[in-house]
Amino acid sequence: MSEKINPIRETDEDARRQARLLLRGSPFGSIAALDPETGYPNCSRVLLGTAPDGMPVILISRLSAHTKALLSDARASLLVGEPGKGDPLASPRLTIQCDALPVARQSEDDRTIRARFLRRHKKAALYADFADFLFMRLRPLRASLNGGFGKAYALTENDLAIDSDATTMMADYQDKLLEIANRDWKNRDHEDSRLGNYVVCSLDPEGFDLRRGSQFLRLAFQKTMKTEGVKNILKSGFFADYT
Amino acid sequence: MSEKINPIRETDEDARRQARLLLRGSPFGSIAALDPETGYPNCSRVLLGTAPDGMPVILISRLSAHTKALLSDARASLLVGEPGKGDPLASPRLTIQCDALPVARQSEDDRTIRARFLRRHKKAALYADFADFLFMRLRPLRASLNGGFGKAYALTENDLAIDSDATTMMADYQDKLLEIANRDWKNRDHEDSRLGNYVVCSLDPEGFDLRRGSQFLRLAFQKTMKTEGVKNILKSGFFADYT
Repeated sequence: MSEKINPIRETDEDARRQARLLLRGSPFGSIAALDPETGYPNCSRVLLGTAPDGMPVILISRLSAHTKALLSDARASLLVGEPGKGDPLASPRLTIQCDALPVARQSEDDRTIRARFLRRHKKAALYADFADFLFMRLRPLRASLNGGFGKAYALTENDLAIDSDATTMMADYQDKLLEIANRDWKNRDHEDSRLGNYVVCSLDPEGFDLRRGSQFLRLAFQKTMKTEGVKNILKSGFFADYT
Repeated sequence: MSEKINPIRETDEDARRQARLLLRGSPFGSIAALDPETGYPNCSRVLLGTAPDGMPVILISRLSAHTKALLSDARASLLVGEPGKGDPLASPRLTIQCDALPVARQSEDDRTIRARFLRRHKKAALYADFADFLFMRLRPLRASLNGGFGKAYALTENDLAIDSDATTMMADYQDKLLEIANRDWKNRDHEDSRLGNYVVCSLDPEGFDLRRGSQFLRLAFQKTMKTEGVKNILKSGFFADYT
C-alpha cells in the first residue's frame, strides 16, 4: 500500500522547458470544452499552431460541436504530448486550462496566425478560408505537466509564457528569419541526417518549428532570443549561437 | 466559401460498428472532467480497459486531479482513436459524453474488471493495488463519431451498447473461452503472420481484444454472440464461425 504523499514535485527549469516544448511542439492535441446543451465536458481532436508569442492556436469550424461550445463558454483544456509506441503513461504530456479567444476574421492578427498555421499544416489550406472556419487563441491560465509515472508538476501562466522583447520583431521579420533559418538548417552537419530534410516552418523567441510532410518537431533555442539577438542574426545571416 | 449545411450524416450500421471498435479497441484515451476548483474542464490521458459488457473502464489514482474531479462530478467525456502517422484529422475518432462511476474496491465487479484490465495492461499490476487507486466505469450517454473530414455521426447510448444475452455467461467462462480463443488464434492461417503473435487478452459478445507487448488491436466478430453461440464454442472448442 502506498503512503499518502503530495504527488506534485517542485517546478524547476527542466519542467518548464519540457512543458513549453510540448505546448509549442505538438502538431495536434485533445481539447475539452463545456457543452452548453448538456453541461458535460466534450473532448475532441484539434490541429495546433502557435501565435507569434508562442501561444497555441486552433483552426475550427463553426459547424462543429467544440466550436459552438467554445464560443458559448471560453473555458477549455488542452492535452498535448502524444505517446509513441511504448507505455502511454510513461510518455510526457501537458494539460493546460485555458481561455479560448476567437481571432477576428481578416484582422492583422488573423492574417499572421493564418500564414503561420498553413506553413505548419499545409492541408489546412483546403478549408481554412471556408466561411465557417475561424482561428482561436488558447490563453493558458495554469497547467499540469506529467513527465511520466509519479513525475507531476504544477505550472503557472508565467511558466509557459515566453519572456522576450523580440516577439513583435520576429513576427515582423518572420519571412527573412525563416529564409536564414532554413539555409542555416540545411547547411548544418546533423547527427541524424534525416533532420536535414525538415523545413523550419515557423519560429519565435524560444525556438524553431520543423516540419517534414506530416512529421513535426520543435527545437528549443539554448537561450531565449531578445531583440539584440534578432538584429545579430539579420546582420550575420546565422542562427548558430542559438541552435 | 462553404454552404451552410448540416454536417452530421445519418447514422448507419457501419458508423455504429466503427464507433464500437474505437470504444473497445483503444488502449488509452483522453478524458475530460470538470475541475471542481476552477470550473474549467480538465483534459488528461488514461489507460482504457473494458468491463465484461464492453463498457470502458479506467484505473486512476485518488492523488491525481482527474480522479478528484470525477469523484466530485461524474460528468465526463472520453476521446479515443489515436492518429497514425498521417493527417491527424483524417483518422477516425470517437467522443463520448459519459458518467464516471466508481467501482467499489474488493467487490466482485472490481475483481472481474481488475483481472481483465491487468491482462490488457500488464504494467498496471505495479500500481493497481495501491490504496489510492480505483477503477471507474464510464457509462456512455451519447457520442459523436468523426470518421474523417466531413464524416460526422451522432450516436446514442444504444448504438454503443452490446445487445446480447451472453455477457454474464462470457464473463463467467472467461478463462475457458480465452484458452479456446488463444488456441484457435494461434492455429489459424493469418494473412499477416505477425498477427499470430498477438494474445487474446479479453473477449466479450462483440469481439476479441488482442495484445502483443504494448501493441493492441481489437477484432470484431462477424455477428454478436448470444448464449447459444457460447455454448457451441464451449462444446466445439472453436470460435471459427465468429471470426
